[in-house]
This record gives sequence, structure tokens and C-alpha cells, in this order.
Amino acid sequence: MSTPSLTGANTPAIGPVVGMIGAGQLARMTQGAAIALGIELRVLAASPDESAARVIVDTRLGDYRALPDLREFAKGCDAVTFDHEHVPTAHIEALAAEGFAVHPGAEALVHAQDKALMRERLTAIGVPCPEWARVADEADVTAFGEAHGWPVVLKAVRGGYDGRGVWVCRSAEDAAPVLASGIALIAEQFVPFERELAVLVARSPHGQGVSYPVVETVQRDGICVEVLAPAPDLDPELAAAAQGIALRIARELGVTGLLAVEMFQTADGLVVNELAMRPHNSGHWTIEGARTSQFEQHLRAVLNLPLGSPSPTAPVVVMVNLLGGDDPELFTRYEHVMAHDPGIKVHFYGKEVRPGRKIGHVTALGTDLETVRARARHAAVYLTEGIYT
Amino acid sequence: MSTPSLTGANTPAIGPVVGMIGAGQLARMTQGAAIALGIELRVLAASPDESAARVIVDTRLGDYRALPDLREFAKGCDAVTFDHEHVPTAHIEALAAEGFAVHPGAEALVHAQDKALMRERLTAIGVPCPEWARVADEADVTAFGEAHGWPVVLKAVRGGYDGRGVWVCRSAEDAAPVLASGIALIAEQFVPFERELAVLVARSPHGQGVSYPVVETVQRDGICVEVLAPAPDLDPELAAAAQGIALRIARELGVTGLLAVEMFQTADGLVVNELAMRPHNSGHWTIEGARTSQFEQHLRAVLNLPLGSPSPTAPVVVMVNLLGGDDPELFTRYEHVMAHDPGIKVHFYGKEVRPGRKIGHVTALGTDLETVRARARHAAVYLTEGIYT
Repeated sequence: MSTPSLTGANTPAIGPVVGMIGAGQLARMTQGAAIALGIELRVLAASPDESAARVIVDTRLGDYRALPDLREFAKGCDAVTFDHEHVPTAHIEALAAEGFAVHPGAEALVHAQDKALMRERLTAIGVPCPEWARVADEADVTAFGEAHGWPVVLKAVRGGYDGRGVWVCRSAEDAAPVLASGIALIAEQFVPFERELAVLVARSPHGQGVSYPVVETVQRDGICVEVLAPAPDLDPELAAAAQGIALRIARELGVTGLLAVEMFQTADGLVVNELAMRPHNSGHWTIEGARTSQFEQHLRAVLNLPLGSPSPTAPVVVMVNLLGGDDPELFTRYEHVMAHDPGIKVHFYGKEVRPGRKIGHVTALGTDLETVRARARHAAVYLTEGIYT
Repeated sequence: MSTPSLTGANTPAIGPVVGMIGAGQLARMTQGAAIALGIELRVLAASPDESAARVIVDTRLGDYRALPDLREFAKGCDAVTFDHEHVPTAHIEALAAEGFAVHPGAEALVHAQDKALMRERLTAIGVPCPEWARVADEADVTAFGEAHGWPVVLKAVRGGYDGRGVWVCRSAEDAAPVLASGIALIAEQFVPFERELAVLVARSPHGQGVSYPVVETVQRDGICVEVLAPAPDLDPELAAAAQGIALRIARELGVTGLLAVEMFQTADGLVVNELAMRPHNSGHWTIEGARTSQFEQHLRAVLNLPLGSPSPTAPVVVMVNLLGGDDPELFTRYEHVMAHDPGIKVHFYGKEVRPGRKIGHVTALGTDLETVRARARHAAVYLTEGIYT
């Protein structure tokens, strides 16, 4: 008998091939949807122990910053897409120029990569944004603070995620070390929001758009910890307005695939905070909570297939992220969590546990928000901390 | 950049390892559930182009009839289980004797492998069965037919599935060529059934049992073509009786993992037809139609984890198998099917299309049986035959 054999390379694909650049948990969760549809998912990983590389036969090792690696990876793919936003824009343009079908395209994706371009474009098309400006020195920040009030939020133009690349500055002195780092920055008005909402939409190359229900996201230290679907007690008109904004951004920017729009709900209405053009943490609830998961939807969109129904499968869905604690062992805790709640859905990303790292999530479904939320929180706290709440 | 790299062999598992012997569509669909739970699924395949081998990194090539291959495969697995029933019973006993955790064990599985032993055991524990007898020659068949009426159903004691190994004989002459083949046979009374039902239950090593709702299965030429969940208009007492029979068989036979019990509904009540101890075609509807899919349930059971909720996610679920037609091309038909019905769920097993072969299935969910059934049938006929119904 042979030891583990390489099937992906030796066996011609039967279905369409989708190549995803990056091999984190988003690519990993996309694999479940790909298997069902008979789509062959290929990933570009930096290392064979990455989350998606562990579960995808056609894993290629390479560097997403190197055009030759990207070109080699894209060969034979019916569509190329992304698990993260860090691929250089120029490389994406080069791939498209060579005839590869890349979704989203560089001209759309750049708005999820470059916060200054994103703000310019959204402002130009009339989407509500916080006041903002490019800033280069303390004088700029001081002027911005005096015009729009303190604190001022500084954001790295490129490369930030999960709270990284964001600094809340109460004064020009606070801003000094950030400015000294030399990275390109924008300043944004600090928005006094009531809560954070997210709208996930999909758009296919032929222009079909679909919106999932608006959700509420709960953040801690800039990291999403909880998603409530649908957003509780949200005025139906405001919900429709939020979906309209997200669909309009997708259309105006020419997004293909998924677009997640993070928004602030304020006393005066909605303000767009961030964009992501890929499956998104705010959409993990759709795996069990919607008739079409965000991962299936993304595959359908990038292959230009008709989009699937975003209808919910339960009146209330709550997703809670599992953030790594001090204990590397999760599996021994499955027993309690599953015995305590036969309906809880546990997702683990096959990643080494490190403090604060997103290592999985749990989803609970039901009819009463407080009950469902308590179930999801109980499971999450027990799995990550071993504490019975 | 490297060409496709072997991740499964080089990367130590983070989660529990479940080894499934066989690499057909049941193993393939189990992979989706394994990925979510962070369970590392390993399969024993005969060839790298088998359905599951295409999507499972830790695919081992070997022969399920060879004990050394099975032993090598089982090393490092927290549980070993099956995609089919064809592993020799003695080999399974040998693995267990060597300390491997095999679920179901040989003493249970043999009742899904050997129809004579199954009938003996079910009769002994008082489960309703058709009249039956071991038969060796025309005189035996004639005597059976005179005692219980014609036609007589001859079944191969071992190795039959999907209608293979079953012969309906109207006379001793009909039986002659079957008897001449020399294979071990039983005769069974031909049951005048009203319809066929199936009950899927799970049982874990520590004895927890769970039953899914009773479904109606529609067979054509011995192959399941359609499953209606729950079985329409089934008397609740009869449904409870059917579930009770299946749970009792699981307990009495010591089944670990899934047990599918196929039954005939007759004017006089229920009669057990066949047993399978693995994920089963009659349970594919649970992927979207139940809070815990049969594939997740099987993994939980063989790892002795608490079982998941079998609650349905919609009042009516219909699954229709995709049987290969003359045209090898399915993917071009996704477009119509998905545009026509955004809620339809398409599953394709990554198998070459051959006439009559099970190559996938579709699932529709909703509230009205006739509507849901028409949706599922439309998708299936269009996908396999290109005919708009």
C-alpha cells in the first residue's frame, strides 16, 4: 500500500476549477461548498499547515506577493479569487491582462485594499461616510481634529485588518508615533455609533445582486466577536436602506463575488465604516442560517452562476467567534458542549491555538434572541476557556 | 513555486483522525462535516480518481480486502469506519483484536453484510420480517414458494446492493440459473407493500441513540430515486413504531455509528427489508434538511461524542438522485437550474457520468409537498437529461 498519495495533481478535474489565493479559514470553509457543487477548489498557501491547506487536495505552495507564483497558480483555473486582500493590485491587473478571470477585479478590489481610494470613491458616489482626509503630519491631524472634533481615528491606508492599523488619537501628541512610522494614513472622524451593522451582498459578473439580511456585529478590541442575524429591532426601512447602500457599492465599484459592508448605526442614520470583498466573518452564520451559505454564494458569483437564495433557515441566528485562550486543547471540550446543546454547531479551523487568534466559531439557531445568544455564548466560553457559564 | 504539495502526510493532525474505508460519495460528503468540526478525515481508496479521494488530502491507496493494507491504514486513527459494507468480517475482527477502534464492530456490521445472519437475528429478537429461509436448490425454492406463495424473492447472502443480488422468481424454473451460479442464497416472501419507508438512527459506543424522522423512499429498478422527508401522511403511531424498531435493532445488534433500516409499509404494518450501517442515500436530505446532517452524526457517533439534533429545518424536504444519462456534461446545466430555482441545492459527487450511475443529488425544501417535489424533480431531470419539465 502506498503512503498518502497525491490525488489532486494526478487526476484531471471533472468540474470547474476555482483558485483561491490564500489558505486561511475562509478558503477552508469554502471547501465544504465546493465539494457539494463538484467545484474543484485550489488554494495558494504559504505553508502546508495553513487552515485550508489541511483540507484541500490541490494546495499549491507559493508567495502571493510574487507574480510568477500567481501566474503559475492561475493556470487552468476557471476563476481566481481571494481569501484575503493582500495581493498587490498591480499583480491582479497583470493576471487579468493575461486573460485570467479574476474576481473581484483589481479596479474593484483596490477599494478594499486602499482606504483612501475607498473613501474618495464612496464620497464621490454619495455613500454616507465619516468625515475623512489624507494626513501626513501633526499639523494635518491637528487641523482635522479642530475641524471635526477629537478623538481622531488614524487608519493605515493599506494592510490593516481585525483592528490592526487603526489608532484612536485624543490629541496630536497621540498621533505623533503613528505619523513617525512613515506609513500612509488617513484621518477619520470618530463616529459616536449606537451599534455596528454589516451587510453582505453578492454580485456576479453579469450583474445579478443578492443581499443577505442585515446583521449586528459586536466587536471587542477591533475584532468581531459576535454576530446577531438579523440585527435585532432594526427598523425595516433602515434595513432596506443598508441593503440598498451595499448593493449600490457593489454595482458602482464593479464588485464580483462577495462584498461585506461594515456600517455604523448612529442617531442620524448609517455611516459606512469598512469594505471587504470576500467571504466575511459577519457571514459565517449563513453556513447553517441561510439557504445558501456565503461560501457557496461566493463560488457561484465568481463562476458567473445564478446566485442562491439568502433566505434564513431560522428566525434568529447567533454566531460567536472562538478566540484562542491559553489552553491549546479544544477537542476534550466538545463532549460537554455537544451534550449540553444538541443543536449547537461547532466550527474549528484546524489552526494551532494562540491567545486571541480566531480559531473557530459556534452558531446557534432558534426563535428567541436571548436564549439563542446565551446558548452560543455558553458554547464559546466553554470551548475556549473551559468555564461553565 | 512547488507543484501540488502533499499536505496530509507532512502535517501532524490537530484534531481527531477518523479513517473511512472506501472513497465513494458517502466518504466525500462526510468530508464537509469533518472540515467544520476540525476532524481529520482519512480514506482508503482504490484509485486517486474516486469520488472522495478527489477532496480528501489524507487519501491512502490500498485494497480493503487486504488485512495488511487495512492495518497500515488504521494506524493513528482515533476511529475507523466504513463507506461500504464489503470489508471482510474477519479482517474487521482482526483490527479490533489489535486494539483499533472500529465502528461499527464486526459483530454488528456482519448483519449488514450477511442477509441470512440478519434475518436470523431480527427474527430472534422479534422484529417483523418477511418469511424467509436459506435455500440451496430448486427443491428448497419450490417448497418455500408452496409454503409462502409466489413470486419468491431470492437474495444473495452477501455482496448485493442497489438492486444487485436480488431476483424475483415466479417459478422454480426462474430460480434455476440463480441457483446454478453457486452463490449462497436466501428466499424471502414477496411483500405486497404500500410504500417503502426508511428510518435512519445513530448510536454511539456509550449507548446514546437518536432517530431522524421517518422518510418515504421511492425506488426504481432497485435503486433509490427519491426521498420524501418526512414520509407524507404517515400515522404518528406508525412513525413512532418505525423509529422504535430501528433504535431497538441498533441497540440489540450493538451498532455504533449510523444504522439505516429500510422497511415496507403494508396493510398489516411494518416489515423490515434491509439494514445498512453507514451514511445512507435515504439520509442525504439531512445535509440541508436537518440541524445535524447524517455525515456529522456519523462522525460524532464513531468518536463517541454526544449526538446532534435531528430536527428538520423545513416542514418538507425532497431529495432526488441524479442518475447518469448519456451526456457527460452536467456543469453547463447548472445555470438554468440555479436561475430557475434559487433555493435548490445541487450536489455532484465528482464522478464520471455513466448511464444509471448515482452521480449526485438535488434537495428542495419548503412547506408544500407537491411544490417541493416538483422543484426537485425539475432540477434532477434537467441536470441529467437536459429536459425542461
